[in-house]
Amino acid sequence: MKPYVIGVDLGGTNTVFGIVDKDGNIIAEDSIKTQKYATAEEFVDAGVECLNGVISRVGGLENIQGMGIGAPNGNYYNGTIEFAPNLSWGHTGVVPLAKMFSEKLGGLGVKLTNDANAAAMGEMAYGVAQGMKNFIVITLGTGVGSGIVVNGQLVYGHDAFAGELGHVIMVRGKEGRKCGCGRTGCLEAYCSATGVARTAREILANTDRPSLLREKPAEEIESLDVSIAAGKGDAVAQEIFDFTGKMLGEACADFTAFSSPEAYIFFGGLCRAGELIMKPIRESYEASVLPIFRGKAKFLISGLMDKNAAVLGASALGWEA
Amino acid sequence: MKPYVIGVDLGGTNTVFGIVDKDGNIIAEDSIKTQKYATAEEFVDAGVECLNGVISRVGGLENIQGMGIGAPNGNYYNGTIEFAPNLSWGHTGVVPLAKMFSEKLGGLGVKLTNDANAAAMGEMAYGVAQGMKNFIVITLGTGVGSGIVVNGQLVYGHDAFAGELGHVIMVRGKEGRKCGCGRTGCLEAYCSATGVARTAREILANTDRPSLLREKPAEEIESLDVSIAAGKGDAVAQEIFDFTGKMLGEACADFTAFSSPEAYIFFGGLCRAGELIMKPIRESYEASVLPIFRGKAKFLISGLMDKNAAVLGASALGWEA
Repeated sequence: MKPYVIGVDLGGTNTVFGIVDKDGNIIAEDSIKTQKYATAEEFVDAGVECLNGVISRVGGLENIQGMGIGAPNGNYYNGTIEFAPNLSWGHTGVVPLAKMFSEKLGGLGVKLTNDANAAAMGEMAYGVAQGMKNFIVITLGTGVGSGIVVNGQLVYGHDAFAGELGHVIMVRGKEGRKCGCGRTGCLEAYCSATGVARTAREILANTDRPSLLREKPAEEIESLDVSIAAGKGDAVAQEIFDFTGKMLGEACADFTAFSSPEAYIFFGGLCRAGELIMKPIRESYEASVLPIFRGKAKFLISGLMDKNAAVLGASALGWEA
Repeated sequence: MKPYVIGVDLGGTNTVFGIVDKDGNIIAEDSIKTQKYATAEEFVDAGVECLNGVISRVGGLENIQGMGIGAPNGNYYNGTIEFAPNLSWGHTGVVPLAKMFSEKLGGLGVKLTNDANAAAMGEMAYGVAQGMKNFIVITLGTGVGSGIVVNGQLVYGHDAFAGELGHVIMVRGKEGRKCGCGRTGCLEAYCSATGVARTAREILANTDRPSLLREKPAEEIESLDVSIAAGKGDAVAQEIFDFTGKMLGEACADFTAFSSPEAYIFFGGLCRAGELIMKPIRESYEASVLPIFRGKAKFLISGLMDKNAAVLGASALGWEA
């Protein structure tokens, strides 16, 4: 095994290239603007030029085991990005990105997956899931993403798109909130950062309860405002976390009936609220889960949140490339 | 690889021992009464005596690769039966059944799992899931059971009890039907054979619609009666299948967000209703599932339903023992 891997965090704004060692230290790093390029070919050319700089700082390609890319709409099986709506050079078709990079990097093994799966790989390689064979990472960001590990392997499913736990239905029928996926009642519509802000606006609009959250125009409220207000003891804000955590706990109870993981690992800005969100998750989970599973699962916060988790997560794929 | 395996179907009434070849043919078979014995030791002694008879018919133990047991509350990791409520010699503790049989069979490899997981192994070895790496078997019997295969492996989870898809919550809150597990709103409370009979009784009690189902006292209605009536064109009976299939389809849509299987394979008496149940399942699934998954999953009926599926399923474990 060679000493380093490359991790690539392909985001809507920047694409970050990092060199990572076996302990999860980022040794060298550089980036390019993701959308500055008209075609995928130009993007890859610029990426390789950027990469050559960082690779030279660790003694060249002969010290690199492989490369992993975390990207929106990434297909692990094919190494492609498929109809990624937010990429100027990738929204109209299928881009064989892993192959394109590999060809320009002397045949280096390149693997590609989506962001949440990369996060799960990162936790297993360098984070709180080290040594675990069965766990689920849930990312609470603009959306709700998930990376599921069973028997020590990522769950990609038949078509590479498994692990969309943000889109299980938590509220069936007409009362369900509209979700970005076009359906209603999805977990993501309630428990993402945007879902939390929406819960806040609903409570403020439907009641006249006093709250620190009223200091801002309702349409400007973000989940961070709810965290700050809850931290100050604001009852409405705390109720929003209780509501969000309760639904996450109930969802996890269903996920346990599926794969009975050792741990749930939460990642993303909402987790910075700490016990404000983790306590209602745990309590709701234990009250909801099938009796044989009670008291068995751990509820953890990611070990990579203060590091460059996206680069680390993607790089973990490089070890298997 | 030796030419035969032993499959054991440990049921509440009979325990059947079968010798199975690589093509899934049961070559020899015999059985004992499960509950005739005061202790697990006596049960195993009687089982081994019975087994010696069938083993001698295929040339002795040297032709046996391994043995698989399908049993209620079976723990695959430990080879134990744990607090099985319906077994006179197994309800008060943990019985190391795999080890006990192995010791009396010259150290033969013995694996043990629960019935629904055995069914999934059987479909993969000899049934409609041959060659599949990702699929879910759903058993519609007295309860709703499941066996989940991901990356070609059974999903046992951290504690060996994963795959309890009959106990995901389909109706949240107070309106949920009471389930045998002590909670409310589980899939099993609606879509098991007993759930279907209950749906029938509810519709008959709450409406005065004419139905062939009224020919029997309501408390005696079984799911088979609903199948027969629906087959004769009874509108109420067909509506019961539509209701049941719709919920199963919605549940499968959530399961796909988890593991995106190539196929759902249904097993059990309710499937004998054929398209009466399969059509609403498919239609509800396609209407409910996240758009990227539409049209991808197959909905199949078990290939082992007219064979001794429980013995075959358990025997499939013998190949890996």
